[in-house]
Amino acid sequence: MTSETQARVREAATVLGYVRSDLGRGLSTRATHRVALVAELENTLYHQLMGPIHDELVQRSYGMVLLSEDGDEGALHERLLDRSVDGAILMTTRLTSSLPYELSRRDLPFVFLNRVGGFVDVPSVTADNFGGARAAGELLIGLGHTRIGAIVGPADTSTARDREAGFRAALDDAGIALPRTLLVRREYDEASGRLGLQAMLDTGKPPTAIFCANDFIAIGVLNRAMERGIAIPDDLAVVGFDDIDMAGWPAFQLTTVSNPLMDMARCAAGMLIDLIERRDINPHQVFPTELVLRRTHSV
Amino acid sequence: MTSETQARVREAATVLGYVRSDLGRGLSTRATHRVALVAELENTLYHQLMGPIHDELVQRSYGMVLLSEDGDEGALHERLLDRSVDGAILMTTRLTSSLPYELSRRDLPFVFLNRVGGFVDVPSVTADNFGGARAAGELLIGLGHTRIGAIVGPADTSTARDREAGFRAALDDAGIALPRTLLVRREYDEASGRLGLQAMLDTGKPPTAIFCANDFIAIGVLNRAMERGIAIPDDLAVVGFDDIDMAGWPAFQLTTVSNPLMDMARCAAGMLIDLIERRDINPHQVFPTELVLRRTHSV
Repeated sequence: MTSETQARVREAATVLGYVRSDLGRGLSTRATHRVALVAELENTLYHQLMGPIHDELVQRSYGMVLLSEDGDEGALHERLLDRSVDGAILMTTRLTSSLPYELSRRDLPFVFLNRVGGFVDVPSVTADNFGGARAAGELLIGLGHTRIGAIVGPADTSTARDREAGFRAALDDAGIALPRTLLVRREYDEASGRLGLQAMLDTGKPPTAIFCANDFIAIGVLNRAMERGIAIPDDLAVVGFDDIDMAGWPAFQLTTVSNPLMDMARCAAGMLIDLIERRDINPHQVFPTELVLRRTHSV
Repeated sequence: MTSETQARVREAATVLGYVRSDLGRGLSTRATHRVALVAELENTLYHQLMGPIHDELVQRSYGMVLLSEDGDEGALHERLLDRSVDGAILMTTRLTSSLPYELSRRDLPFVFLNRVGGFVDVPSVTADNFGGARAAGELLIGLGHTRIGAIVGPADTSTARDREAGFRAALDDAGIALPRTLLVRREYDEASGRLGLQAMLDTGKPPTAIFCANDFIAIGVLNRAMERGIAIPDDLAVVGFDDIDMAGWPAFQLTTVSNPLMDMARCAAGMLIDLIERRDINPHQVFPTELVLRRTHSV
């Protein structure tokens, strides 16, 4: 085309509502060099992962868009599928979410980070949640506890499912039952720990130890125990999961299971870019977990 | 144009890299119904504001895009100014940032939330940081303290500037000096409290009370005090700022200045939409703060 023709096309295109934009170039070449991070914004655990993901993306010349998973599902799907991003990292997907299915159907590259969704087999970066929870259970059993409660996350998250399964495996191996009154399933937050412990106290037959499926829950248990004058670990042993910064604070000294979330976050970002750029990947990275022994399991 | 001509234009436009897209329609009508939230992702205080902002936006039929302020400034400016959003909320802007100037120059509607930037006069939603810090200072002075330290945030944030000024005003009114060894300026995090207290202890003449410009800093002070066996509040009184959830936990029971951050967040989102839709606004909303007396100022 001559430049005069180009100018005429440009004018006509404007009338029709076309524009020359980065998104436009993205659409024709299929590369926007932008990646979406999809997360439940209410969940504070995942906030700390934004930094490492952002760093890894920027280092490889990708930008990051954050999308909330809390709101309107249709709007989220639309925003992910309008080709304004090359791919997505799903951080807080529920097992029942239709999002993974929609993204697969529409061929948008994506990876699961920490939690995996149901429906489809998708590249994922997770921790060994089963193994970590089993080790936590074995620790408490090894200390002689036989009446052990558990406060886990929502039933429709893979982390709660796998951590509960690992904990139950340890109990099963030791021939210890988990009475229904000693299992609480709630959100992954501090309030769940406070309310969960209170519910167990209200039964009149509280446990001597509690496994908590994340550290926020465990800290909630410690908070309620402090309010009720319950001595930790003499009256009640507590083990958490994740080893967030707060777990090491002098006020808590929480025994927990460490979860290399920062490494996992960078790994997921790198994996997604490899997927987008059609390099070979190892589609299921499982990071090891490790017991961190502080002061809440034993004196 | 005839439909045949339209088809020819469409074809030529594609060759030139034009596409008909939502972004395209957004550009011609100037309405994408999307708003950018710009924040330092490392800063955990602001994470909790994403939820209320998201809710307010969704209720008024706007979507939210999150952009990181930590990385490449040029890339951020570009992403904000490619007309893929109708406006922006700046949550963590530094006084030295050029972003407000760039957005003003390019006529993108935006508001400051909590922190304000330098350079330009922009609609803002803030707390009464000066008044809150002054009240905290007066509280400590009223308890008889005359050797009072302060650990404040980065010098290039408006919140640190205003909180330090309010605290100094209280000292000035009482004729109390603030020795250089008792003023620490660092990031708004827990480590700043730990290191700040340690630095004051290392001088050999520690203060009997410390004003902290946010609760994370104050909790860091409490953590270090616990490690060093310093009794709170007998040996050291501590006052924070913000009244985050953690401040009320039994482990801390932090006396602090409450800051209606959730209300401020919703207000900023609403103000931005009013700006975008050209309704009248009250351009500078200042929310009152309030002392919250718990256990760290006095027994």
